[in-house]
Amino acid sequence: MISLDSLTDTAVPENIRLGRDLNVDKPLGEHAVLSRIREISEKNEIWRSYIGMGYHNCRVPHAILRNIFENPGWTTQYTPYQPEVAQGRLESLLNYQTLVTDLTGLPVANASLLDEGTAAAEAMALAYRQNKRRKVYLSDKLHPQTLAVVQTRAIPLGLEVLIGDVFDIDFSNRDACAVLIQYPDTEGTVKDFTQVVENAQTNGTMVVCATDLLALAILRPPGELGVDIAVGTSQRLGVPLGYGGPHAGFFSCKSPLVRLMPGRMIGVTRDANGKEAYRLALQTREQHIRRDKATSNICTAQALLANMSAMYGVYHGPEGLKNIANRIHNATVVLARGLEDAGHVIENEAYFDTIKVNPTLAVSEIRMRAQQKAINLRYFRDETVGIALDETVEKEDLDDLFWVFNCKHTTAEKVVKNLGDMVLPKEHLSKSPFTRTSEFLTHPTFNTYHSEAQLVRYMKILENKDVSLVHSMIPLGSCTMKLNSTTEMMPCSFPHFTEIHPFVPPEQALGYRLLFEELENDLCEITGYDKISFQPNSGAQGEYAGLRAIMSYLDGRGESHRNVCLIPTSAHGTNPASAQMAGMKVEAVNVDKEGSIDFRHLVAKLEKHRNNLACLMITYPSTNGVFEDNVKVVCEMVHEAGGQVGLCRPGDIGSDVSHLNLHKTFCIPHGGGGPGMGPIGVKLHLEPYLPSHPIVDPMALMQKRARSFGVVSAAPYGSAAILPISWAYVKMMGPKGLRQATQVAILNANYMAKRLEKHYKVLYRGNKGLVAHEFILDMREFKKITGIEATDIAKRLQDYGFHAPTMSWPVAGTLMVEPTESEDKAELDRFCDALISIQCEIRDIEEGRSDPSCNPLNMAPHPIVTVDALRWGQAA
Amino acid sequence: MISLDSLTDTAVPENIRLGRDLNVDKPLGEHAVLSRIREISEKNEIWRSYIGMGYHNCRVPHAILRNIFENPGWTTQYTPYQPEVAQGRLESLLNYQTLVTDLTGLPVANASLLDEGTAAAEAMALAYRQNKRRKVYLSDKLHPQTLAVVQTRAIPLGLEVLIGDVFDIDFSNRDACAVLIQYPDTEGTVKDFTQVVENAQTNGTMVVCATDLLALAILRPPGELGVDIAVGTSQRLGVPLGYGGPHAGFFSCKSPLVRLMPGRMIGVTRDANGKEAYRLALQTREQHIRRDKATSNICTAQALLANMSAMYGVYHGPEGLKNIANRIHNATVVLARGLEDAGHVIENEAYFDTIKVNPTLAVSEIRMRAQQKAINLRYFRDETVGIALDETVEKEDLDDLFWVFNCKHTTAEKVVKNLGDMVLPKEHLSKSPFTRTSEFLTHPTFNTYHSEAQLVRYMKILENKDVSLVHSMIPLGSCTMKLNSTTEMMPCSFPHFTEIHPFVPPEQALGYRLLFEELENDLCEITGYDKISFQPNSGAQGEYAGLRAIMSYLDGRGESHRNVCLIPTSAHGTNPASAQMAGMKVEAVNVDKEGSIDFRHLVAKLEKHRNNLACLMITYPSTNGVFEDNVKVVCEMVHEAGGQVGLCRPGDIGSDVSHLNLHKTFCIPHGGGGPGMGPIGVKLHLEPYLPSHPIVDPMALMQKRARSFGVVSAAPYGSAAILPISWAYVKMMGPKGLRQATQVAILNANYMAKRLEKHYKVLYRGNKGLVAHEFILDMREFKKITGIEATDIAKRLQDYGFHAPTMSWPVAGTLMVEPTESEDKAELDRFCDALISIQCEIRDIEEGRSDPSCNPLNMAPHPIVTVDALRWGQAA
Repeated sequence: MISLDSLTDTAVPENIRLGRDLNVDKPLGEHAVLSRIREISEKNEIWRSYIGMGYHNCRVPHAILRNIFENPGWTTQYTPYQPEVAQGRLESLLNYQTLVTDLTGLPVANASLLDEGTAAAEAMALAYRQNKRRKVYLSDKLHPQTLAVVQTRAIPLGLEVLIGDVFDIDFSNRDACAVLIQYPDTEGTVKDFTQVVENAQTNGTMVVCATDLLALAILRPPGELGVDIAVGTSQRLGVPLGYGGPHAGFFSCKSPLVRLMPGRMIGVTRDANGKEAYRLALQTREQHIRRDKATSNICTAQALLANMSAMYGVYHGPEGLKNIANRIHNATVVLARGLEDAGHVIENEAYFDTIKVNPTLAVSEIRMRAQQKAINLRYFRDETVGIALDETVEKEDLDDLFWVFNCKHTTAEKVVKNLGDMVLPKEHLSKSPFTRTSEFLTHPTFNTYHSEAQLVRYMKILENKDVSLVHSMIPLGSCTMKLNSTTEMMPCSFPHFTEIHPFVPPEQALGYRLLFEELENDLCEITGYDKISFQPNSGAQGEYAGLRAIMSYLDGRGESHRNVCLIPTSAHGTNPASAQMAGMKVEAVNVDKEGSIDFRHLVAKLEKHRNNLACLMITYPSTNGVFEDNVKVVCEMVHEAGGQVGLCRPGDIGSDVSHLNLHKTFCIPHGGGGPGMGPIGVKLHLEPYLPSHPIVDPMALMQKRARSFGVVSAAPYGSAAILPISWAYVKMMGPKGLRQATQVAILNANYMAKRLEKHYKVLYRGNKGLVAHEFILDMREFKKITGIEATDIAKRLQDYGFHAPTMSWPVAGTLMVEPTESEDKAELDRFCDALISIQCEIRDIEEGRSDPSCNPLNMAPHPIVTVDALRWGQAA
Repeated sequence: MISLDSLTDTAVPENIRLGRDLNVDKPLGEHAVLSRIREISEKNEIWRSYIGMGYHNCRVPHAILRNIFENPGWTTQYTPYQPEVAQGRLESLLNYQTLVTDLTGLPVANASLLDEGTAAAEAMALAYRQNKRRKVYLSDKLHPQTLAVVQTRAIPLGLEVLIGDVFDIDFSNRDACAVLIQYPDTEGTVKDFTQVVENAQTNGTMVVCATDLLALAILRPPGELGVDIAVGTSQRLGVPLGYGGPHAGFFSCKSPLVRLMPGRMIGVTRDANGKEAYRLALQTREQHIRRDKATSNICTAQALLANMSAMYGVYHGPEGLKNIANRIHNATVVLARGLEDAGHVIENEAYFDTIKVNPTLAVSEIRMRAQQKAINLRYFRDETVGIALDETVEKEDLDDLFWVFNCKHTTAEKVVKNLGDMVLPKEHLSKSPFTRTSEFLTHPTFNTYHSEAQLVRYMKILENKDVSLVHSMIPLGSCTMKLNSTTEMMPCSFPHFTEIHPFVPPEQALGYRLLFEELENDLCEITGYDKISFQPNSGAQGEYAGLRAIMSYLDGRGESHRNVCLIPTSAHGTNPASAQMAGMKVEAVNVDKEGSIDFRHLVAKLEKHRNNLACLMITYPSTNGVFEDNVKVVCEMVHEAGGQVGLCRPGDIGSDVSHLNLHKTFCIPHGGGGPGMGPIGVKLHLEPYLPSHPIVDPMALMQKRARSFGVVSAAPYGSAAILPISWAYVKMMGPKGLRQATQVAILNANYMAKRLEKHYKVLYRGNKGLVAHEFILDMREFKKITGIEATDIAKRLQDYGFHAPTMSWPVAGTLMVEPTESEDKAELDRFCDALISIQCEIRDIEEGRSDPSCNPLNMAPHPIVTVDALRWGQAA
């Protein structure tokens, strides 16, 4: 018998152990934590927000809320790398792509990005990658947060950013990679930019259009206006506001650009039996293959939210979306007319759902009246007021808005009276050249499931095609797939968390503020950092933000020449991709045969680059699944050489910044590929350089000391609405629970490694012969004699009811297994038994009992259609 | 083209059409209805209740709440009559039976009854049925509502009820069918009643013991004390209070009584391949076969709630249940000692979780102090106070209770301090003869799924074994299986509806009161009645209550000799069973070949029984699926003969009372066999006779005019917590929506009947050739030539992915199809196509293309294990 403590003591190097209990609150029970977080949520005040700016109230269909957002069958799958057990969410994500391509009028789209701001930045990067021109034009009518994110991203690319009226640009110098416009623009105006597109494209400049999917149900789509790329957020299609996220960003483009497009794409293919099937397409552009040459560092996106929006589209169909869009537009027309009747001036010539009002009253007066009705409006600096309507608008809301603008009720009431029945003619846009005439969403999927019974059945069919954590363990090395407790998930549906606009005055979001403060305190204690930024909304975003903070810091010290980033070859592929995007020069450091950093190679690299060293970026424990003894020494060496140390797991071992993947380890479920959340922790000296925001600035408290490098996400606090998950996790675990979770994760990995070592080669171990929380099984030896590869074993595991472990990464020809602390011994054994049984099947081939060209492994997986066949290898 | 209106006009006889829109509110949207019902719910005040009396707060495990209670995959299945597509819930209900048998220490149990009160009444009826003795002893320490329900049920059976101290009874007269005791009793006292059992049984009197499953985790079970029957409620095992319901009642007994046991039982059997499988057992005792000779009228029980309790048992396992029980008991010991220290007298010698306190303070003073802390206690008439603790108890709760009783904090705090960690010794009971020594729940199922990951996977495995409405239509004649909208279901989880004890002072339940009033108004308008009673918690309970109200009314008119109840043979089997239980003499009325009441036979029966006629009980539209033209005339004839008319569907056609099956038609989902809800509507003259209640009397407003026949359910308003479903349904439909739902239901049935009439014989139609909302397909003709029976077709439908229609009921050898208004044409066609294809398969047999002894029909269904077999008809 060996105790959990002594196992951990052996597996985890002494010099990185904390040596005391964490100073976090004692654990609360599930019900206590839920009432506590409910209290916290109720400190948020829910006003009606007409702020717009890319965030709108919407009606989340309850069937989608309950059967997708609140259903572990939809929230706990992995990214669909194994198409055989992922046809459900692949189909749904393909629906998302169809929704985006059809509405934007462009032929290809990806399966979501993080938000509108980063989608716009990715578009700019694509344009630059394609034509290498060093100038970019941004419309001054982009949402301010989009402008900020794009500007931030432009700096390390060395792009010159010019902001202004896009109708005035002279493209004839042929030096601009792209021009970014918005349609309808941030003030709500719909303008015909055909001429801009023509001018730009004639001169080799790409046109990127930020747009609004719901508006495009009745507006002429940007694709028909000739743009190269359309970007935006699909939040208003059935995803709650959630104080800024998570929502899905979208990206569509012309066909020739498809290989340059960032993020994941679903493609249609045919399976072994010739039947249509879905799979991830064009993965060769991604970081796990291309590393610092990847199209982008985006890895996890917003699959769960993309699925919600896709289902919103499926449920409403083209006619439903048109009805919703027309109703909102009609309400806006009614509002505008009523305001005009009362003497106010509407500044927009044409609009969809948002108007800019030059009022007869003083804005301070309007603000006071709005406060009385608990209404948030957008207050421009030029003493005008923005009002954005959405699908939740009712007659009473217009009444209140008229009251706020002090309109006489009599005239207003007349125009309003029929609004509820949507009988107003589509007056405004329908008479304009902007009316959409082309059909969209003509595919049967978008024209079939319009009742709740049909929708629920469709969602269930898709859910049941996939393997998720509700079926079995998903032992994914480097991905920590663990079932998330219902208690942690429940607050994500609390209306006081979901129904709040990210740009409300901070005093309305005191619940969120308290949540951030408590979580930040706990995370600082757990990681040993001094400050947390919650803005990065994915792990890769966190890496990027951390590196940018380091660069800013070095710059502040007058060391802007330091730009070399050392990255071990064992690191996650997003690391080099992020470093490259942050403007760094990536230098690889080798890994020794135990999976640790090759110390001598590191010393050599440090020596070589010491004058230009910006930082060392390491993952700890390493992606190879070992705790490296000398990590503290390594950190010291880097500091001595003038560099900073970035770390990809919590720890207090001399690093300066770390991104924390709350996604997964801190219980945010994988969602089939997002939402993730990648806050970063930094030491005090880096604090002033953390992300800021143009509307609600998380750095405001630092005042003059703030020297932020810029903005990484559209929302000030990233995907705020899922932070209650991690908060609840820490509160329920307490100091002993957190420690025990880690210990059990290490125990489980070592138990499995031990059981399997007689049957498979365990590739890397620390110098004590133990692994950390994950381990690598080497499958390369089987190839020569039997022809069996890691992929055959992965597919065969599906026959046993399991999702494959991480395959051929970080080492080709291997499987990396991470059991996590949430699986019990029975499940670990079940998985080991499957692998051992598979090893027997391999031996059968080796020893001639099984046909080398037709055996259970190379024919795997075996779906019912095969099992049911009259002859082996033939579909029934 | 024929309009929906004209179709309905043809199908529905003119004299029963309303001829105007219903006067209910205009329809509200899904989100509006949800905020309205949230407001209503928040009018309920949630105090801490220590009232006990069979209702206790509990911690519903969130994984069970979300994955069973809020999951349409678990709420929308049908009663498991088709075992092949019901193995999941059959296994779960078997777990429930195991939970009950193991905890009560008796060998057999059923798969739930409605509540503790009716379970006790059923036990009394069983005893009477067995030994025909006309006296019954009830302990005066039964819960008052149990006493009331049992007394009410005893009257029509002609039983003499004697209430008193069971330790004083002399059984030697051998004239008592049963004695009902409670353990622990309503005051919390645990007494050794071995001697009572021995005395009773020696003299041929059965012993029925009402008990508490959680207490039995640490108390010697009643089975070991020799009782014949144990009854009670499993509410506190993971089901919310919900102002009284729905919860599952339980019933276990000695083996020889199994054939007399009421309700459904799950049995273990073997399938065609010899594999263990589950199915409903002993159905021959049920009303659809035995009619007025059935063991009971109970049909729908509380399957969904039984499943929740079963999963609570599976999740916690025997050790978990013991821990919970010990912790509560320890807290009670702490409370009792603290109170004693302060001079109060504890009246119970031994207790589990409930004590009766004779306080040093005036009760009025205690009441005032309790109100200050928002605490509900049980106030006895003898100036003592009852306190019942439960698993939610925390140290702070005891502090508050001590404060209420004005105890000095110092002494109390000392005993309390370790409560949270459950480290107190099991002091009180562990030293008594009542300590449980026998093991329970030793089956692996109760010792495996103790983590949320395991539990969620287990629930998912079971869910996915079953066909429910999330997969396909369930076209069950007479059962209206329709998918219930998420919006309707969501309020059932609102804490302000779920966390309220049924016996709180009425001023704390104003939200429920408003809900009842609004729903009553709407139901009265829809049905044409004047008053609604919400107490009956199932359709059969509603029937019984209606008949009892009629009998009481007749009695009040001095016509107690009227006891003949005419029931058409087409009526639901529960009707004659209920009539018999209500003390009526059942006379059957024939049905003609169109499925209508045989008018001449009715006239003859009326003539024959006119002097003793109590009522005519009809289902409308009839169970055969037709609207009968002359129903108004029939009602008049009955009235003329001095009888009353009971109706089993809403309608305003001269009837006096009707039970409304909110379950299903009014959107309460089937839940795999409950919860149902069977409120009754009555005309003004019957109002004084509606159900009352000993604690919270719904008849209180009638004051002296109230002449209630008694109490039918343990809770005053039945399964109050699911009434928001029906409320929301009516509010969202509005007058036009309700009308249209009916019209579409009729349209769908007629569309299917029309499509199928070329292939199958449609058995009954009205005189216009149309069916109502359901229809019967006659399968009898196939038997002679092909040997194929209705059951083969039903099983073959499973291969096509459908649940079978109602089989051989009300006519043997037929299938009855009810599509409901919620299925779209595509699904209706898919089902018709399946039936048509099956008809081709029958013709293949008929015409020699298919083997009569081995063909797709008589071998159906074909599970994977068969399809996968190497040889046909053999398991793989």
